[in-house]
Amino acid sequence: MKIVVAPDSFKGSLSAQGVCQAVKKGIQTVFPEAEVIELPLADGGEGIMESMVYASGGKIVKVTVRDPLLRAIESGFGVLGDGETAVIEMAQASGLPLLREDEQNPLIASSYGTGELIRAALDRGYRKFIIGIGGSATNDAGAGMLRALGMKFYDKAELELEDGGAALGRLARIDPSEFDPRIQHASFLVASDVRNRLCGAAGASAIFGPQKGATPDMVDQLDAALRHFAEVAKEQSGMDLLSFEGGGAAGGMGASLIAFLQADLQSGIGLVMESIDFEGKIQGADMIITGEGRLDAQTLDGKLITGITEAANKAGVPVIALAGAQALSAKQLAEIGLVSAFSIVSGPCTVSEAMEQVETLMTEKTIAIMNLLKTFMLTD
Amino acid sequence: MKIVVAPDSFKGSLSAQGVCQAVKKGIQTVFPEAEVIELPLADGGEGIMESMVYASGGKIVKVTVRDPLLRAIESGFGVLGDGETAVIEMAQASGLPLLREDEQNPLIASSYGTGELIRAALDRGYRKFIIGIGGSATNDAGAGMLRALGMKFYDKAELELEDGGAALGRLARIDPSEFDPRIQHASFLVASDVRNRLCGAAGASAIFGPQKGATPDMVDQLDAALRHFAEVAKEQSGMDLLSFEGGGAAGGMGASLIAFLQADLQSGIGLVMESIDFEGKIQGADMIITGEGRLDAQTLDGKLITGITEAANKAGVPVIALAGAQALSAKQLAEIGLVSAFSIVSGPCTVSEAMEQVETLMTEKTIAIMNLLKTFMLTD
Repeated sequence: MKIVVAPDSFKGSLSAQGVCQAVKKGIQTVFPEAEVIELPLADGGEGIMESMVYASGGKIVKVTVRDPLLRAIESGFGVLGDGETAVIEMAQASGLPLLREDEQNPLIASSYGTGELIRAALDRGYRKFIIGIGGSATNDAGAGMLRALGMKFYDKAELELEDGGAALGRLARIDPSEFDPRIQHASFLVASDVRNRLCGAAGASAIFGPQKGATPDMVDQLDAALRHFAEVAKEQSGMDLLSFEGGGAAGGMGASLIAFLQADLQSGIGLVMESIDFEGKIQGADMIITGEGRLDAQTLDGKLITGITEAANKAGVPVIALAGAQALSAKQLAEIGLVSAFSIVSGPCTVSEAMEQVETLMTEKTIAIMNLLKTFMLTD
Repeated sequence: MKIVVAPDSFKGSLSAQGVCQAVKKGIQTVFPEAEVIELPLADGGEGIMESMVYASGGKIVKVTVRDPLLRAIESGFGVLGDGETAVIEMAQASGLPLLREDEQNPLIASSYGTGELIRAALDRGYRKFIIGIGGSATNDAGAGMLRALGMKFYDKAELELEDGGAALGRLARIDPSEFDPRIQHASFLVASDVRNRLCGAAGASAIFGPQKGATPDMVDQLDAALRHFAEVAKEQSGMDLLSFEGGGAAGGMGASLIAFLQADLQSGIGLVMESIDFEGKIQGADMIITGEGRLDAQTLDGKLITGITEAANKAGVPVIALAGAQALSAKQLAEIGLVSAFSIVSGPCTVSEAMEQVETLMTEKTIAIMNLLKTFMLTD
């Protein structure tokens, strides 16, 4: 018996690894001999580093970097089990959860720390990068990251700009002469499902700025500043940062990654699944158990569970799902390729009651399902 | 594929038949060819008549009788599929739900209507009786029932007593001369799990009186009245109504059924299961699905689910359960012989939300389980 546990995190309640552990416990209560493969997943945002490290049997390298307000914090990057791929999670250095609500300010928040993480990995010899850019606090078009990697930004008076998106409105010249030369010999894959471009009504500032604390006035100011940055860059390098699909991801980080690090943007879950050899790992499995906090209409549009069911379908492995709340009909479940889905709750309860007991509920529900299968499954 | 659906009612929410229908719909959504045998159960109380008639393919005969306050109401008795067994449910004539709360009064409430149901069945030729005595509004030691069958109760002044338990305190003489002679040629099985005797601190009045509206003073008055009735009966007939185990059931109805109708008291669920040939019907089944509103510590002490699992175990048929709330651990489920149990709810919700959607939730949960089995069960 071989079961793959490949869940998303239950947001606000349990990490994808935590889900794996609770489900594994349930499986092994009923089938002590079962081989359980834990593949916690993430679709590119927060949690991607830990998930990929855990799923691939890799490690985390600790590094001190600057947070979005340039204060020193303990952070780190991941190294996959292959020993040669570094995983950078932007949220670990430049993430919104690192700030108190009253500290959120996309005018000044900097992606500098993410650049430091990249530099630290380059220093240790890594040249293959996977970068997750979800959950950022910044709207600086990745200028902070570029500065950490040696790029210089000057105003008309030939003074270096301060960090943050707003300052880019005064950009006069970019000096790439000290830009880290190791970047040329490195490859960067970026996990992102954002298709927005850098500027405009569907750009980084307008769409993602407000959730980082931008007022309508700030959105206008930031959109203009990023557009100015793109114009200066185009003048100097000929590259049109405004044109990149996905350039608006992570406060414009996407555009700089594409332009200056020659990064490829890929679907988050696809990249994660490829990196951890998802297809290889599910070969010969009897079943995949996935899950997320809520199974609802958004799941149908989402990438994570459909990514799993597509791969599983090819491999002929059935997929079942656990959820905090299961709001899909049997027909909808079939449409996305799930055999069955079960809420983990054991009766009427509040959301916070369910969250408090999430691990126990998950283990108990897994036991219920496994006991059912043990009874009715004729194993070889 | 043969599946037996044998649930209790989900009290306050869905009858056992309703549960059967919702589960059957779910099964046949996934396995259109499956043979689904619906055996709604009841443990002797309210619902026993409909359940047994439904499970055995019998019928209901409508009769107008007196309610506990002697008002005419539409009622009826059941006839099992064998065509010869009448099922009388006391609650259909003398039940607490027939009264408004401000009408509840165990001093005067009468079991007369239950006697009328028995008489109506005798009139139609039935001589085999199953009587369910749960849910009564009465505390009259079955005197009302006996009067409906021809027994007469006089006070010292040789006036007939009025109905109700209190009047029995003035009983001087019982006249059995007009007691229905057909009773002698009939057999009565009573479904009851109550072991309390007629009088005393654990008697009918003390234990069950309060839930029928008896104040502490009324309890004392009723207990004394029933004891006096037993003394008169003993003097006249030699039978000691106080000595019968189960004599305190249904406000003392148990004692009169034993003494004057030569009834046998049997475990409710055992009697129901035997009457509908439960053992025969589960032969060759792949699975039994049972269920009740709540699976909790009371279930462990209860008779219904353990009755099912005992019979199923003998026949080698696995049992799973559905519940509104499932509060038992995997270990406790194993102890009562259940393979698995699932709450029907699909996420955090209130009890009333769950109740409102009970049928849909039950069908959807059944589909989830059946899809799981369809995928993992290797059928012959």
